[in-house]
Amino acid sequence: MSIITLLTDFTDVYPAAMKAVILSIAPQATIIDITHRIPPQNIKWGAAVLSITAPYFPDNTVHIAVVDPGVGSRRKAIVIKACGEKTHYFVGPDNGLLLPAARALGSIEVFEVSTQALKPASSTFHGRDVFAPIGAELSLGKDLHSFATPTTHYIEPAIQPPVLQQNTLLAEILFIDSFGNIITNVPGKTALEFIRGSHVLYLKNQKVSFAHTYSEVAVRQPLMLIGSHGFLEIAINQGSAQEYFKLQPEDVIEITKTE
Amino acid sequence: MSIITLLTDFTDVYPAAMKAVILSIAPQATIIDITHRIPPQNIKWGAAVLSITAPYFPDNTVHIAVVDPGVGSRRKAIVIKACGEKTHYFVGPDNGLLLPAARALGSIEVFEVSTQALKPASSTFHGRDVFAPIGAELSLGKDLHSFATPTTHYIEPAIQPPVLQQNTLLAEILFIDSFGNIITNVPGKTALEFIRGSHVLYLKNQKVSFAHTYSEVAVRQPLMLIGSHGFLEIAINQGSAQEYFKLQPEDVIEITKTE
Amino acid sequence: MSIITLLTDFTDVYPAAMKAVILSIAPQATIIDITHRIPPQNIKWGAAVLSITAPYFPDNTVHIAVVDPGVGSRRKAIVIKACGEKTHYFVGPDNGLLLPAARALGSIEVFEVSTQALKPASSTFHGRDVFAPIGAELSLGKDLHSFATPTTHYIEPAIQPPVLQQNTLLAEILFIDSFGNIITNVPGKTALEFIRGSHVLYLKNQKVSFAHTYSEVAVRQPLMLIGSHGFLEIAINQGSAQEYFKLQPEDVIEITKTE
Repeated sequence: MSIITLLTDFTDVYPAAMKAVILSIAPQATIIDITHRIPPQNIKWGAAVLSITAPYFPDNTVHIAVVDPGVGSRRKAIVIKACGEKTHYFVGPDNGLLLPAARALGSIEVFEVSTQALKPASSTFHGRDVFAPIGAELSLGKDLHSFATPTTHYIEPAIQPPVLQQNTLLAEILFIDSFGNIITNVPGKTALEFIRGSHVLYLKNQKVSFAHTYSEVAVRQPLMLIGSHGFLEIAINQGSAQEYFKLQPEDVIEITKTE
Repeated sequence: MSIITLLTDFTDVYPAAMKAVILSIAPQATIIDITHRIPPQNIKWGAAVLSITAPYFPDNTVHIAVVDPGVGSRRKAIVIKACGEKTHYFVGPDNGLLLPAARALGSIEVFEVSTQALKPASSTFHGRDVFAPIGAELSLGKDLHSFATPTTHYIEPAIQPPVLQQNTLLAEILFIDSFGNIITNVPGKTALEFIRGSHVLYLKNQKVSFAHTYSEVAVRQPLMLIGSHGFLEIAINQGSAQEYFKLQPEDVIEITKTE
Repeated sequence: MSIITLLTDFTDVYPAAMKAVILSIAPQATIIDITHRIPPQNIKWGAAVLSITAPYFPDNTVHIAVVDPGVGSRRKAIVIKACGEKTHYFVGPDNGLLLPAARALGSIEVFEVSTQALKPASSTFHGRDVFAPIGAELSLGKDLHSFATPTTHYIEPAIQPPVLQQNTLLAEILFIDSFGNIITNVPGKTALEFIRGSHVLYLKNQKVSFAHTYSEVAVRQPLMLIGSHGFLEIAINQGSAQEYFKLQPEDVIEITKTE
């Protein structure tokens, strides 16, 4: 009994065809949707969501992720084997989508799927025709080397690390959740190093408290915290930080502190 | 093989982390999403949706419900054991969310989760760190008394009962479904007692037929009926009553009848 | 272990009640959502989505589909047994919704559910009270003849075939996916016959390339292709054809070519 997760920007309908193909090959698979609502073709958002969710799954989980503006082009299909406390497999296009999640699990080995294994695919729906079958076969224990070869040539994700200066932290927005909470690219450790006891921060000329949970500030007031995903998060207690600060995904933000 | 349901206001992504945790503890669990689209922090809406859906699940189902504006504060975590024809368990925050559904199943016993069992949690994602593990353990048959103690102190939901006068019924809107059907807090029995053979009702100065099904009135015409959930419902045949009557959740409405 | 799929226009909440009923009857069923976001009461859209998705499921799958403006009226409930390489069952209202998908599988036999089997139903939620139990029983191998009788009287879907003239193809839009790709009613074979080597087509006075995959044209440029579903599709590379061409479902479009 093995678990296969799906993460795509398909929203609806198309994931069901992927599940049909998976269950035709691996009828006992437990299929879990991580999300199908990655904004269309937003590889960075997909990579961020996958990396904060995949590590919670048990040993031996296979993740199929498809945010794939290059479908049908010559971009490669890859499988990453990630080994740490647990071993997970990641299946998807070679565009940076899979790497942050795989690295969050432990050390990685990247494999390029052989062109032969790609042959009978449609040119627009590799989620159904390429990645779903590969994921299903892997969940049944198929040997990776039988259809893929190790490679050291693969695309790195375009996510920038945050820039930490004395009183300023330059951060990028990774994604915004459905509550309007803004998740940045600043790992908790980096954020705490920056803050060092400063409990008042500034964002867009607004004072923002640093807190441990939403309810530490008054209703509709802004806060920053280390979110449950381990990254610096900007939130409003019972409100939307996205609306409050008028920020968008991929915006670069400047957080300052007073000594 | 046991069933665990999830109801949250998380919309997306975060439910997958809950499922990852559940499957790590209870790999055989069948996980069913009731919904993750409760409007953010709307406890009453969540309570209503849970209460009309939970009773259809088979014996021994565990329901994990998280609409939790007080996460990270000192609000308690509770488990309710509900026994009627079937026994169900409800796991979630102590804020009224679980009670209507538990009572719809039968008699209830409420347990407070010990602070020790809550210890290692993040302060913002108890869905993943507290409620998912408890639900998973319960589904495996873990003894409730080993991590929770019976309590009679718990928060009642803020849902008002309808007020029935001679020719007027004051009702509150519990929730509005995706068709725009308006589900009120008036149990079918109360509605029928009010109507007593009157087949014309008035809402916002509009005549509304009382009917048994949508297609009894012309297309785009309003009707009231006892919905499949057992409550008085205001609907438009093939249209949206929410748009037609310009009503919002939690609005109090006055329904009148002529003798 | 058998598979039951669900396709409805319920969006949310109500599918969970259907699953509760299914699991009460068939606890081992694997339930897969095709979609619950068919636009309300849009039978043609539902029929199109079902027909492009159902064929990928393995032998013996039971599909329950509910887009049902006539619920509670005297419209019949039907079951279709479709036999080709695989045998599938389709359960739902008699309004044309099921036929294209069933025919995509192979030859069909249509059965009318006996009024006796319909008796204890609510008048507004046959998804839960009629179709879910029938689907669950079928998945357990219940004999169709025990609750339904063969019929040759059933409603055909209102989908028109495309009209192919010398330099003009009149097509109807079946549905529009979440990327804004427009899926027409033109089977790939018909489209290729029309195009016959012409690689420039016109739609609304705009030149549109005929291609094999999205990335063959520049970013934000329009193309037509035979989609993964087998129908002629109008798309924008990394954009929305619905917005670009300002087209709506059920619009009839005129595609022309130059010799």
